[in-house]
Parts: sequence; structure tokens; C-alpha cells
Amino acid sequence: MKVSVIVIGDELLIGQVTDTNSGWIARHISPYGWEVNDVQTVGDNAEEIRRAIDRAFESSQVVLTTGGLGPTKDDITKSVLRDYFGGEMVTDPSVTENVNRIFARRGIKMNPLTAAQAIVPSSCRVIQNRVGTAPIMWFEREADGKVLVSMPGVPFETSTMMAEAVFPALRERFPSPLHIEHAVLMVTDYTESGLAMKIAGWEEALPEYMHLAYLPKPGLIRLRLDGRHEDAAFIKKEVEREIAALKDILGPAVLSDEDLTPAEILLKECAAKGVTISTAESCTGGNIAHELTLIPGASEVVNGGVVSYSNEVKVNVLDVSAADIEAHGAVSIPVVRQMAAGAQRVASSRLAMATSGIAGPGGGSEEKPVGTVCICARLDDRELYETARFNGSRSRVIDSATTRALILAVKLVKGL
Amino acid sequence: MKVSVIVIGDELLIGQVTDTNSGWIARHISPYGWEVNDVQTVGDNAEEIRRAIDRAFESSQVVLTTGGLGPTKDDITKSVLRDYFGGEMVTDPSVTENVNRIFARRGIKMNPLTAAQAIVPSSCRVIQNRVGTAPIMWFEREADGKVLVSMPGVPFETSTMMAEAVFPALRERFPSPLHIEHAVLMVTDYTESGLAMKIAGWEEALPEYMHLAYLPKPGLIRLRLDGRHEDAAFIKKEVEREIAALKDILGPAVLSDEDLTPAEILLKECAAKGVTISTAESCTGGNIAHELTLIPGASEVVNGGVVSYSNEVKVNVLDVSAADIEAHGAVSIPVVRQMAAGAQRVASSRLAMATSGIAGPGGGSEEKPVGTVCICARLDDRELYETARFNGSRSRVIDSATTRALILAVKLVKGL
Repeated sequence: MKVSVIVIGDELLIGQVTDTNSGWIARHISPYGWEVNDVQTVGDNAEEIRRAIDRAFESSQVVLTTGGLGPTKDDITKSVLRDYFGGEMVTDPSVTENVNRIFARRGIKMNPLTAAQAIVPSSCRVIQNRVGTAPIMWFEREADGKVLVSMPGVPFETSTMMAEAVFPALRERFPSPLHIEHAVLMVTDYTESGLAMKIAGWEEALPEYMHLAYLPKPGLIRLRLDGRHEDAAFIKKEVEREIAALKDILGPAVLSDEDLTPAEILLKECAAKGVTISTAESCTGGNIAHELTLIPGASEVVNGGVVSYSNEVKVNVLDVSAADIEAHGAVSIPVVRQMAAGAQRVASSRLAMATSGIAGPGGGSEEKPVGTVCICARLDDRELYETARFNGSRSRVIDSATTRALILAVKLVKGL
Repeated sequence: MKVSVIVIGDELLIGQVTDTNSGWIARHISPYGWEVNDVQTVGDNAEEIRRAIDRAFESSQVVLTTGGLGPTKDDITKSVLRDYFGGEMVTDPSVTENVNRIFARRGIKMNPLTAAQAIVPSSCRVIQNRVGTAPIMWFEREADGKVLVSMPGVPFETSTMMAEAVFPALRERFPSPLHIEHAVLMVTDYTESGLAMKIAGWEEALPEYMHLAYLPKPGLIRLRLDGRHEDAAFIKKEVEREIAALKDILGPAVLSDEDLTPAEILLKECAAKGVTISTAESCTGGNIAHELTLIPGASEVVNGGVVSYSNEVKVNVLDVSAADIEAHGAVSIPVVRQMAAGAQRVASSRLAMATSGIAGPGGGSEEKPVGTVCICARLDDRELYETARFNGSRSRVIDSATTRALILAVKLVKGL
């Protein structure tokens, strides 16, 4: 089934806000066997919204719109939808109740602007927005039964309510005899083409009701196996069996069978095993600590870290040997190994990650070009270390080095 | 003049990549008096690309496309454009030369796939891509002189070449008697509505050939004043005069008259004044150091920092008084003041920033709810500190606290 997305809002056309809703929808509908055919971004302009709806219905069975609602500007989108699908504007008391409930929870009073959110076209069925005040509106075209669902623009509200209510409702409206199962593996150590070659035999032997998708990120590839079949128990077992076979082929390159980032995998493993974490960062400049502490609950396992940008901090705080910096350079394996040990000591942690490298754009040399990063992960007295060579801009090098340090740490903690 | 944007690529419709090109275009064309009317995202599909072009020309004089080129998939977009604008496929030797030059710089050899990039429709004028291998193609519709410019999808290539070549060429093709001047101010300490009230008198008195835009970010508002007039010298002087008047009204709330982030402003000020920087981060978890070290040249002024997530690190590394943590809590002004002083000492820096707060979602209390962050900036022995209360998710609180710490530091260093 084809789905078209319309993203509404002047703030998108002046570049003040970047749309992330359409990407979220794209990533989350494919397991249902649906696909995004196109995305249109238009301003808060009745004529443009109307034209975008016409265009979307030309190619798709379902149109999902986000944005163009909210207390100060809902008039335009709502009146376009009323004109398009018919009916008149009515107050829906269940929306008023929902808005009141949300405001009570936040400890604020409803004002006339938000009261207006309960006014909706009579031609729609309201899906209550559990996490926000703008209602979700479901419309159907009488002529052909095509569906348009209008949702608010706030990404958290849209993703929550889509997963919780809109996708299930669409699945009920457009039923399929097929049951859906999917599973993911987070794989490291391979390039995309190298991985494809390694698992070519397994992948070619997949039955036609199963499909493998590669979603590469720097340092990591997310493999998603989707299965669709009329027999629910059968497809569940089949997906499990194929994933087990894939894990056997890939061995220690599989970091996780959950859809988590390297930082999330590390935090989860460390929390389960009671391992505390610290960092000693030169070229990554605090980004490893930042990635870990973005995750709720990080304080249970992250003790802290040192951003040792200057050699002085490396020597004075982390006890790195000044002679070794002199002899091997700050970007060297002896130095990152000492940095990791220093971080363990300073923050009394069992696990430490250390980086030292040349993020660029300046500072490279023949022997150590821009992108060269020495990385060490140390758990108790066991270590994994390497000198990596990353491509791309300064921020790309920092991101890649961060990911690789987290992956080395996961390998140590999981004993891969 | 209205501009439509078409973003091409299957990777966007499966949510693997987020489009940032259309936002960049939107932010950068408004000073020319042009506006983005709509953005369409379509897959690498000839029929969909063709329809998107038709739709875009319905409303706009200029269509900018990004993506759908590159060595492995350029056939589709290029052949659609050839069909649309006529002509035949020809090899453009200047493109071959450009690709060779870029490959030589990267030290790699050209392969048959990249050689194909020099094949372009004869109906286009090639704009050489100085920073990548995919050529930029300029087409004009004979019937009405409307223009389509096809550009690669890599954001760095697109933004560089648009600023350098495409915008100037568009301005030449669609000349305007008006000269353009613009200026920005980065303003803090105000909410958007508070700022609008403060400068209402000044703003209302602006002549009709000048326009003020508010671009709010967390903790900061970017004000951009655009002026357009036939007399170049006159408008330059007028913009300067109005910006000077605005600076007078806003006083110390103006952090910069350059379009820079708080981290960039701080780094620039510190580099100019020879001030070295360190950080002591609890709830921001390394993000202040990360923001600073993302900027090329950071190593000139950033000495390093401590992520003191645990109280033990606060006490042992930063010399915070354990008794004060006990008496006031880790999230308190006495503690962040000692953290800042500790960071100065540990990293031998003149300037330090410190944060301690509750990023959430857990850990809040009646007295110190989620979002409460104590922040201190310390330059030599002068300090600015405050307890802030931020809204939003964990990552939003971390971002807001980071920005505020950087702003307090800028104020100290600039003596605002």
C-alpha cells in the first residue's frame, strides 16, 4: 500500500525547523508492507494544502499529514479539510475533556486559544491525542474510501500516537491476511558491501516472504529482517530461526539483537553487570561522555570523565607519561592506553574509553593524516586498542571515533 | 520570486537519510527576496520525478533539485531531465577534467562509473562542481524561460556550490534593480515575545524597504535585518544605522553581530584575548566541551575539562567540599561555583564553565524539579552564576543548559 506524507508549516519553508516526522514514518511503516511514495512540504496556505492533498491522493491510498494544527494556526488546515471532506465545524466534547486532562497534569489552565482545538470538522473521526492537545483527525473520501489522517507537528506527539493508535487503525481499515514479524541485528566490523558478500549465501536462500534491509550508520550496520505470512506462529518461528542462523554466521560482529545505539547497548550491558564507566577524551572532546549521558539512567553507571585536550591535562590529571608523549606523540597507542588507565583511576571505574586523534581540518601529517585516531577501551586490566583512519569532516571524524570507542567497550564488556 | 525544491532519493523515502538541503536553501534565499513555495521529496523513479517537476513549475519560476545523481544512480534523473528539456546525452570534457582533478587531489583513480558523470543532456549548461564529482546542470524551458537547476545530494557540495555559483547565476538570470544588504544580531536574555515588545517602537518605524526576521533558538534569538533598495550605498548605510540603533536599545543582551553559535562566539572572543577554557560538567555530561571542540581551532584555547557525574569525581578531582554537597545538594550554587574553580585549577585555564542539574526524566523533587540546572561561569576570579529552570526532554534540558553556560561565559569574557 502506498502512503503519501504532507508536512505543513511556514516554519519549514523558511528553514527554521527541520522535518523529522516524515523520516520517522518512512522507517516505521515498511514492516507493515507499506511504503512512502512521496513527501510534500507546504506552508500554512489553504490553496497549497489543498493542492498537496489532491496530488497525494493521485498516487496513494493513505495520506498522512503532520503540522498545520495547534492553538494559533489550526484554522487553515482544519478549514481546508472541512472543505475537502465536507461537513461543518463542531465542538467535540471528548477533545475538550482531553485538553483539560493534559492541562491539569501540567498544572495550567485552559485558555480560549486552546479551547478552539476541540472544534473539528464533523466529517472526521477524532483519535484522541494522549500526549498533546491537538486532536488527530481521520477522514475518508466517500468516492473511493481513501483515507487522510491529520496529526500535529510535534515529533514526540506524532510518533507516539502513530505507533499507539494510527498504525493499528490503518491496519484495521486496510486489513491484510499477513502477519508481520521482524527482528534486527546491530552488526559491526564490516563495510556494507563486505557484509553483503559475507551473508550472500544465507540471504539468497531466504524465502520470498522474508526480506532483509541494510541500514548503515557510521561504524555500524543495522540489519532488519521482515517476514510476512498468513500463519502467525509459523512466521514468528521462521524469523527466529533465520536470525539465529545469521548470528552464527556473523559471530562476534553482532553487537546486539535489539534496535539500540552503541551507547545504549553499552549502558544496558554495564548496568546488568554492575560495571561503572569513565572516559578520557582528547579528539572526541567530550562526545563519548555526552552520548552516554544523553540516555536516561546514565548516572547509575557513568562515574565521569576527563576531556584531556591539552597535554598538560593528560599528564597532570590522567598521569600519562610526558616522556611517552614526547617519544610517540599525543596521538599514539601508548598514550591512549595510559589515558584509559588514568580515567579508571580518577573516576574509580571498571571500564574506561580513551581517544586521541587528529579531527582536522588542520594538524595532519604524512605519517598521521587528518582522521587518524588512536582508541583504547579498558575493562579492569583487559584492553582493546587500535589506530583507526576515518574519512570526512571534523564532526564526522569525531562521531566515527566516538562510535568506535563505544563499540570496542561493548566488545570488552560482552566478551566478544 | 517563488522557488520550488525537489529532493530526490529512495534513501529519503525509507527514512535512512534526513534531508537538510531544503532547509539550507530556505534559510539562504530569503535575503534575495525569494521564497521557497514548496518542497517535494520523491524516490529515484522517473515517473515521480517528472510529475514533481510539472508540479513545481506550476507555482514557481525556479526549481532547484538535489540528489538523484552520483555514480551509481545518475541515469534516472539525467534521462528524465533530457526527456523534459530535450537534446541528447553528450560527454562534457570539462566535467571529465573536473572529476580527474578532484580524484587526483584525493589520490585515487577514476573508474568507469565516475567517468559516466561527464555524460550530460546537451540541453543543459554545466556549472562546474568545485567540491565534488557530480556536475551541476542548468536548464531553461524554452516556452517560458523558467529555470531548473539540478544539484547533487551531498549537503556540503550543494551548500558550497549554491552560495558560490548557483545563487549568483540566478541573480544574473533574474536581475533585480534592488541591492541587498543584511545584518544579524545574536540576542539573549529575552523571550521572543519579550523581545518583540522591547523593540516594537523601533521595528514599527522601519521603512518599507527593510524587514526584520526573528529566528529563535533555545536561549538565543537570531535577529536578521534585510534591506533592499535601488541605491546600494544608501541601503548599506541605512542597515548599518538601524543595526546600531537596535544595539543601543538592547545593550548587553546583544552577544554578537555575527551569525555565530554561542560556542563560536566564545571561542573567537577567547582566541582574541588569549583566554584559555575548561569545563566541569555534571548534567551536561560533556556537551559543553563537545560543542566547543567541534569547532576547528578549538585546541588553541580549550585546555580540557572534567565530566563530574558522580559526587566522588566532584570531590576528588575538582576539590568540591563533600560537606557542601551534603548540606546544599549536588545541584546547588555553592557546588557549581566550586566546580568552576576546580576546573580552572585542574586544567590551568582562565575561564571555566560548570553545570549541575536534573536533566530527567527521573530525579526531580518538589524543590528541584526536572529541568533545574545550576550554572556558573568563572573568569579569573570573577563569576556569573544562576539557577535556571528548563522545559522539555532530557536532551532539550542538556542543550539549553549548555547554551546558557556558553552565554554566561561570553558575557564574562566580553564584560557585558
